[in-house]
Amino acid sequence: MSIIEKFTRLGTDNAPGQEVRQDTSSLESRLRGGKLDGRAVDFSHGDVDAHEPTPGSFELFSEGVAKGGAQAYTEYRGDIGIREGVAENLATFTGAGVDARDGMIITPGTQGALFLAVAATVTRGDKIAIVQPDYFANRKLAEFFEAEIIPVQMAYVEAEPGQAGIDLSELEAAFSAGARCFLFSNPNNPSGVVYSPDEIAGIAKLAAQYGATVIVDQLYSRLRYEGVQYTHLRAADIDPENVVTIMGPSKTESLSGYRLGVGFGSKTIIARMEKLQAIVSLRAAGYSQAVLRGWFREPAEWMEDRIAQHQAIRDDLLRVFRGIEGCFARTPQAGSYLFPQLPKLSLSHGDFVKALRMQAGVIVTPGTEFSPHTGASVRLNFSQDHKAAVAAVERMAELVERYRA
Amino acid sequence: MSIIEKFTRLGTDNAPGQEVRQDTSSLESRLRGGKLDGRAVDFSHGDVDAHEPTPGSFELFSEGVAKGGAQAYTEYRGDIGIREGVAENLATFTGAGVDARDGMIITPGTQGALFLAVAATVTRGDKIAIVQPDYFANRKLAEFFEAEIIPVQMAYVEAEPGQAGIDLSELEAAFSAGARCFLFSNPNNPSGVVYSPDEIAGIAKLAAQYGATVIVDQLYSRLRYEGVQYTHLRAADIDPENVVTIMGPSKTESLSGYRLGVGFGSKTIIARMEKLQAIVSLRAAGYSQAVLRGWFREPAEWMEDRIAQHQAIRDDLLRVFRGIEGCFARTPQAGSYLFPQLPKLSLSHGDFVKALRMQAGVIVTPGTEFSPHTGASVRLNFSQDHKAAVAAVERMAELVERYRA
Repeated sequence: MSIIEKFTRLGTDNAPGQEVRQDTSSLESRLRGGKLDGRAVDFSHGDVDAHEPTPGSFELFSEGVAKGGAQAYTEYRGDIGIREGVAENLATFTGAGVDARDGMIITPGTQGALFLAVAATVTRGDKIAIVQPDYFANRKLAEFFEAEIIPVQMAYVEAEPGQAGIDLSELEAAFSAGARCFLFSNPNNPSGVVYSPDEIAGIAKLAAQYGATVIVDQLYSRLRYEGVQYTHLRAADIDPENVVTIMGPSKTESLSGYRLGVGFGSKTIIARMEKLQAIVSLRAAGYSQAVLRGWFREPAEWMEDRIAQHQAIRDDLLRVFRGIEGCFARTPQAGSYLFPQLPKLSLSHGDFVKALRMQAGVIVTPGTEFSPHTGASVRLNFSQDHKAAVAAVERMAELVERYRA
Repeated sequence: MSIIEKFTRLGTDNAPGQEVRQDTSSLESRLRGGKLDGRAVDFSHGDVDAHEPTPGSFELFSEGVAKGGAQAYTEYRGDIGIREGVAENLATFTGAGVDARDGMIITPGTQGALFLAVAATVTRGDKIAIVQPDYFANRKLAEFFEAEIIPVQMAYVEAEPGQAGIDLSELEAAFSAGARCFLFSNPNNPSGVVYSPDEIAGIAKLAAQYGATVIVDQLYSRLRYEGVQYTHLRAADIDPENVVTIMGPSKTESLSGYRLGVGFGSKTIIARMEKLQAIVSLRAAGYSQAVLRGWFREPAEWMEDRIAQHQAIRDDLLRVFRGIEGCFARTPQAGSYLFPQLPKLSLSHGDFVKALRMQAGVIVTPGTEFSPHTGASVRLNFSQDHKAAVAAVERMAELVERYRA
């Protein structure tokens, strides 16, 4: 594949945060009506002003700067003292041991961990099983490394309550066709559904049977709503050398501005990830790493309050979406993503997303980013100011009526 | 190439900062004599405690944190306001315009910019010309992307004063053999030599003739010693779309702990770099980007003083190296690397580097990391405490005598 082809496939025009670079001139003549007033809301990512970073995080950063060179220059995989603390917390959280020395790497954001984990697992021509819908970068990473994607459908719309809806027979077919890597997010990004204990056991069983590596992105696994049971794949009946788990304090903890993530599990894959990190970015910013000293040590009531606030926003937004005729919105069980399916419109759903930004000051991410089959859906990160988010979704509902087919 | 092969080639055992992960048990029985006392010095990277970060950098970071979400979530290529300020400063510094909107990207360190620039320029099977010796990651990046490396020798030992010693006929041969990318550092890492105006003009002429892209790593181009003339390739007679320049505030400014770099120049390549950054690390840490607001705005006397301090250390270390019989050390013209060639020893030079760490508390980077032809050399980053650095190199001289063949 030529370099031009390779990068043509790596489109980011619809990627969250990049809307500012779009050309919308051809759409303008097809817009109906005027602008809807109201505070602009960017649902493409969480609002860390509405939900502020963990208390004490800036102080930990400052202490890191005061440490000087020892904090600025760490091993590529991160400072060993920090890794030891984080490993202990992650072991408790996930219910399975984490080897701080050899089984963990600190990365620039969870995106960094995901990139390294995929790069360390598949190469040109390898087959990789990827869920549809799932985080858009999964597909792009596989494509960048010229791996062959075998999609595995997750029927979150039709699934029984408590089930994500993954089609395990498709996963088995993918393994049987030669895929030796399976990549998925739990809770699922964009739908917010959590895989059931049975589904996780089924994934573990198939991975063991075929000797496949599983990369599981658990970025949002701390932000779980009432009554949700969460199962960590790495604590299931599976060879620990065949699992890499990815987490980070970007979301629930609102620490995105520091760019921190971790990959942990398989020592073989972590070792490769470090070798690659050495030429990709050397290490997560040394001073930022110091912020991880407070991770999983937040005051319990702070965490409960954060979850309660998100649950309240979720419920209010669901009410608005469910008031739109023909709109389907499954209740997110964890995380802060909502993935409503919109009714038929006179604009393409892609253009509707642009109109929404231009006419209502509302930014959402088009469903096509997550699966070719979810073009009628849009993703909202509802970690926003509560009132502003509700008002924004009400404007969205008004625009749906304006453009209804 | 299988994933295992791919990562076997990506060795980091001798990479700076990774020495702590080495197994040295087989060497122990071959060591002579006891340990030499003295303060340990890690010459694999600069000491940001001895040469502290730019004044005001932490305050700029703090202001970034206070800005909240707007600073945490920037475009993938970085905050536009910051890019505008940096672009202006870089244009003045390099003597050619920089397009803040389309011709520049902020990355996690200069390593991040280098990775993205190479990834955006060559792919499997493409030929790339790389200087020997040069920064070790250059070769590893090319190998990771399965590009074919055509080495271009730089005879810095034999070169006339004022010349780096690049063999332009080899560069022409590389282009003529199909290479459409040339990657080099100026000042050269590891030798500290600066390319002459003629050499830069020669590179520009050949690149124009063959339509090749040049990636030039100018990380150390601000730290220039007395009487040195520096030529920016991007200001030479060359199509600006065929040049990407890489810089960052990690070195002279000691801001490594924030992980910041920039790539600027060719809009086509910068656009690809951003697409890739979106799946590699999203963006340079948002809060860290704020530190760039002070870049190139340091007090003039602060910068002069920093350079004078480094020149004084350089001169003292050169005196010690030149006192070792059979040791060659060319005077670095810029940057803080010294690359002395050691005399023949009874240990391999690789083992000598390990012995140096074990017996003298001195860490240097083996010459084999930079070229297959510089195994007898070692690289020292002399941005260290002055006295400690001199004492460490004196211990090194003592060990050279102990192991002299």
